[in-house]
Amino acid sequence: MSDLSDIFNFFKANDQFARHCGIELLSAELGSARAKMPIQPWHLNGAKTVHGGAIFTLADFVFAVAVNSHGQLAMGINTNTAFLNAATSGILYAEATEISLNPKLATYEVKVVDEDDRLIARFQGTAYRKKVAILP
Amino acid sequence: MSDLSDIFNFFKANDQFARHCGIELLSAELGSARAKMPIQPWHLNGAKTVHGGAIFTLADFVFAVAVNSHGQLAMGINTNTAFLNAATSGILYAEATEISLNPKLATYEVKVVDEDDRLIARFQGTAYRKKVAILP
Amino acid sequence: MSDLSDIFNFFKANDQFARHCGIELLSAELGSARAKMPIQPWHLNGAKTVHGGAIFTLADFVFAVAVNSHGQLAMGINTNTAFLNAATSGILYAEATEISLNPKLATYEVKVVDEDDRLIARFQGTAYRKKVAILP
Amino acid sequence: MSDLSDIFNFFKANDQFARHCGIELLSAELGSARAKMPIQPWHLNGAKTVHGGAIFTLADFVFAVAVNSHGQLAMGINTNTAFLNAATSGILYAEATEISLNPKLATYEVKVVDEDDRLIARFQGTAYRKKVAILP
Repeated sequence: MSDLSDIFNFFKANDQFARHCGIELLSAELGSARAKMPIQPWHLNGAKTVHGGAIFTLADFVFAVAVNSHGQLAMGINTNTAFLNAATSGILYAEATEISLNPKLATYEVKVVDEDDRLIARFQGTAYRKKVAILP
Repeated sequence: MSDLSDIFNFFKANDQFARHCGIELLSAELGSARAKMPIQPWHLNGAKTVHGGAIFTLADFVFAVAVNSHGQLAMGINTNTAFLNAATSGILYAEATEISLNPKLATYEVKVVDEDDRLIARFQGTAYRKKVAILP
Repeated sequence: MSDLSDIFNFFKANDQFARHCGIELLSAELGSARAKMPIQPWHLNGAKTVHGGAIFTLADFVFAVAVNSHGQLAMGINTNTAFLNAATSGILYAEATEISLNPKLATYEVKVVDEDDRLIARFQGTAYRKKVAILP
Repeated sequence: MSDLSDIFNFFKANDQFARHCGIELLSAELGSARAKMPIQPWHLNGAKTVHGGAIFTLADFVFAVAVNSHGQLAMGINTNTAFLNAATSGILYAEATEISLNPKLATYEVKVVDEDDRLIARFQGTAYRKKVAILP
């Protein structure tokens, strides 16, 4: 499906902050997306665990890809994140799943897990869908 | 107050991800903290606005400093963020304010504004306070 | 201002669940509202403190009045509630304050306090504003 | 398992606000619970849809039963609720599922659906677990 692969490539090429955080998009389907983030020393906070901001960014990124997978530009308006376990090394994975979609609003769940499939964070995000296309 | 300045210096020196995101701690008091983040091209998402992850990281950082200002190690367990206006350039500022504090749990509000004091995001975070000190 | 008093009266007359919960609307301004709920035995949960659902309903009610005070029908889409202190007797008060308002979305903060102004809960709610009027 | 049935009976007998809202507990297992709420005219808000407070109360109730199913007294500290579709008549069902459990904190997801299994709301709640038993 060419539209979806165009959107996939758009995010890989244009999300500069995701790249700055070492996040790699793995897959995107209509309403879902997966990415990974290999933990680097600069992901850590003062307590030497992965910073909540890095975990959030990974979750927010797959949320953005999933909600924009429909081709309509969408912007996150509300996110809730439960931080459940600390992560210190290895690779983090995030997967976004669509919970609800209507013409104006869409809601997604994201799970962030480590390599042992231990749940690191759970994110719920709602986006507002504009009437313009994500791709030019 | 020496303890507080030690904690201030601890965060400046040891929060690697905050540094990676270009965040600078401006001040810390008991239960509050302020920081700034000059917007760089690598803070942007595909829509050319500051990534939700960068805004969150700025908010989460002042939350962490504020809740740890009491000297007891605290970890964020739940955050809610309303993204209210897009930011594209200039400097973002975040300020954390204490809403509630008891021996085990503490809750903070964070406002993120731009240079014109326009509200970019509003964050509410709850932390769990461990029985160990933040500083060695 | 007659429109606002019409909206005030509309909520007093038509919000059946608020009435079922013993909630009384005290005041409404553009973008804000206040209400009270005298605690009754049937507000309690099994732990003999006021049920989170009763506290939430009080907060959600002033949120609804405040966001609808502008005359445009609005529906809550996301709420986050931090429960900070238990309440057992007396009167609870809630006040909604506008944080952000645009044509489609609006965000409010609500504080719920007891008679001693102790903070019981803090609520952040976002609503979607439809293109129809709240009043017939 | 007798402890669990004691907890089940405790909630049925002692949660006065759940009863006031017409909520019936259907089942409880370790870490999960189900309940229903037949919609009554007094559940409605001014827009003639089920009040967010009634939907929240149903969700919060199964959250409380699920987190207390382990026998240790737990109190909700943070809840996030996405309201996805309006409900007007019939029966609402809520089911709580455990996401994370440790000695001090536990997090649950609750889905609220109508009779056609349409998703009405999605709730994420975190509780603090005290060192006392729920039953006397």
